[in-house]
Amino acid sequence: MSQSACQPTRQPIHHSPAIRHLKDGHICSPQGFSADGAAAGFRPAKPECLDLAVLYSQQTAHAAGVFTRNLFCAAPVTVTRDSLHKESKLQALLCNSGQANAGTGEEGLKISLWKQQILQQKLRLGQPHYAAVMSTGVIGVLPDKDKIAAGLEKIKLGSDAHSARRFSQAILTTDTCTKTSAYRLEIDGKPVTLAGSAKGSGMIHPNMATMLAFITTDASVEPLFLQELLRSSVERSFNRISVDGDTSTNDTVLILANGLAGNREINRNHPDWKDFRQALEMLCQDLAKAIIRDGEGATKFIEVEVISAPTEQDAALCARHVVSSNLFKTAMYGEDINWGRIACAVGNSGAKISTERLSITLGREDDPDAICVLDSNNPRSFSEETAARLLSRPEIYIRINLHQGLSHANAWGNDLSLDYVKINAHKRS
Amino acid sequence: MSQSACQPTRQPIHHSPAIRHLKDGHICSPQGFSADGAAAGFRPAKPECLDLAVLYSQQTAHAAGVFTRNLFCAAPVTVTRDSLHKESKLQALLCNSGQANAGTGEEGLKISLWKQQILQQKLRLGQPHYAAVMSTGVIGVLPDKDKIAAGLEKIKLGSDAHSARRFSQAILTTDTCTKTSAYRLEIDGKPVTLAGSAKGSGMIHPNMATMLAFITTDASVEPLFLQELLRSSVERSFNRISVDGDTSTNDTVLILANGLAGNREINRNHPDWKDFRQALEMLCQDLAKAIIRDGEGATKFIEVEVISAPTEQDAALCARHVVSSNLFKTAMYGEDINWGRIACAVGNSGAKISTERLSITLGREDDPDAICVLDSNNPRSFSEETAARLLSRPEIYIRINLHQGLSHANAWGNDLSLDYVKINAHKRS
Repeated sequence: MSQSACQPTRQPIHHSPAIRHLKDGHICSPQGFSADGAAAGFRPAKPECLDLAVLYSQQTAHAAGVFTRNLFCAAPVTVTRDSLHKESKLQALLCNSGQANAGTGEEGLKISLWKQQILQQKLRLGQPHYAAVMSTGVIGVLPDKDKIAAGLEKIKLGSDAHSARRFSQAILTTDTCTKTSAYRLEIDGKPVTLAGSAKGSGMIHPNMATMLAFITTDASVEPLFLQELLRSSVERSFNRISVDGDTSTNDTVLILANGLAGNREINRNHPDWKDFRQALEMLCQDLAKAIIRDGEGATKFIEVEVISAPTEQDAALCARHVVSSNLFKTAMYGEDINWGRIACAVGNSGAKISTERLSITLGREDDPDAICVLDSNNPRSFSEETAARLLSRPEIYIRINLHQGLSHANAWGNDLSLDYVKINAHKRS
Repeated sequence: MSQSACQPTRQPIHHSPAIRHLKDGHICSPQGFSADGAAAGFRPAKPECLDLAVLYSQQTAHAAGVFTRNLFCAAPVTVTRDSLHKESKLQALLCNSGQANAGTGEEGLKISLWKQQILQQKLRLGQPHYAAVMSTGVIGVLPDKDKIAAGLEKIKLGSDAHSARRFSQAILTTDTCTKTSAYRLEIDGKPVTLAGSAKGSGMIHPNMATMLAFITTDASVEPLFLQELLRSSVERSFNRISVDGDTSTNDTVLILANGLAGNREINRNHPDWKDFRQALEMLCQDLAKAIIRDGEGATKFIEVEVISAPTEQDAALCARHVVSSNLFKTAMYGEDINWGRIACAVGNSGAKISTERLSITLGREDDPDAICVLDSNNPRSFSEETAARLLSRPEIYIRINLHQGLSHANAWGNDLSLDYVKINAHKRS
């Protein structure tokens, strides 16, 4: 039973083989969804830029949402959250990029409610609260009603890849690429599809740090259970990426489940609920990681895994604290392992752990170059050359073993580079 | 009673006129203290550099300490904390800079205990636990016993400014200047002096992010009350500066009160205890601000004051969260008011507040250029030229009015500059 302290004690995660990634999947891959994006002219310098996005389900969908915990939250967040509270149903979504409609007081709320009404009229929704409304962009600026109305006129909903792509583009702000993923699995012998589209700049962009993710599925899912599944998937994906310590005023993840796949409604008694949860978690992780990869100024994608922790929450606290630490992030930019900063961040994470048997490994288990730098709190000598080689890669993996339980968690982040400061010191104008 | 929302509702702070700043004061200004610094050779590249510091009180002093909350704390922190628990008394202090003696396991503890013994022998202390031991420097490296012993031989204690200066220099790591302050007041008709010396790099320096502060006073103070006063003063000073989210493994503040001033022992029944507390708080704030001013890479000194908060704790949470926000700090570097980032940080601070009447002002009340940018959550138009002028100054003051109580708190930080990243991306070697 002798085992090096740097070796993991957890089991490898089992991915159900029934869940298939759809290489060319998009937000309209699940049955009954259509979408489009239009240029409403919110960016005076780029009038041709798509900045108004609409998503529609031919059947009213069970819906759930997870919203920013920032007390200073934007008007559309308040309005959409209130709408979901009414029936946990949505049929459509209207999102503008350019103005965040945050810090806009009563006027901001009025415009968000008006956006619901105008979308209800255009798409003949049964209720205004079947329309989710979102905004992302500069804080403190009201979206222009006339531009929204004119932009909406240009929307031509479609279910093809082209329409889905226009939707995904229209929600972006300073992102450099669209972020999409899709999975398919079988439930009750029926093919069920999940897809998502996200925008977000990691922690990188000055006034537009909002993270938005919209998920569609044709599965039938019991509404309260859908909320529970979304919350746990967000916890293991979007809540595990470093967002610079600051949650934006507009952060939102929404899921619409329209039931057109024809499966029996998924709840905790359904035999396949765990497969569905796993697919949803994989989808959310794909989108979260895509946000990190698109972090402007970033030169590295960093994964920190904490294993053998007393609880998943403790493991997650440690992993998140490490990927969020400026001292760690600058060390990664400088390609310096500097494990003291990792240990320091673990000690500060707030997790209820002991640090007496802390081990730190650079590189994955199956990487012949992997090196253990701290072994049960004893510094190990290692080849600086190997460490430099591992750290010169664009993707870095660090494993922290706490040696005190069976729980683990991953977090993803990037380095803090000179470009990060240059980008964020730019003027608003 | 009409009052602009941007105006403060608090009373100005009353500074007791009896507390006098000692312009040329130093760690040995209080009666009965002597000190010195020596070159023990912990930095091979700079053998002449002072790196071993000793402080001594001719009479055993009541003592109190506040230590890092980092679970991964250094051996000397463990040893000194345990020593204080025994009798709350100290007579001397030995601090080395160069090696932090953190992450050094059992060996690190042994060396710290040995340091107590060797200091006890040299200074003929009644008990080894009357010696506080501290280390600051690179994590994961053991201090060399022979170097400590040889360095200790060179120590020649004195009470003059020159000896005090050598002490203050020897505790520094990558600091660019010594940090000292001293105050005098009268208690029971006797002059009482407080002085302090600190080291710290704000959140700036790669492996040496430790903050140390040593305070001497000739006041007689009841030991448990001394601990209480130190804790509250640290809360309003060192805990109000941005330390990058990460508390170091070695952070320590110690106070020694040797009673030679001859006042009646200060406790909560003493009529002048609030004056003493105020002097201690002013001293701690001077040292804390000096750490911020010495932040390498920093181009701005920033004070954020939160007023009209429900509790001081809520005000402090808001103020600290703003000065710690990377997005805010980069905006300050870019000299851009960008109040959305300030509001966003307030909303994320964890304070139990409402953000419905948030006001933000740039510039002090008595500054004719001061501008209100957000007034009870309504963005105000302001002169970009005036804002640019205020932000071009090396010292920036921002006031946040929550309009919901009578408590206030200040926090101090600096900007996040290109040099910060350059310095912290440097290799350990």
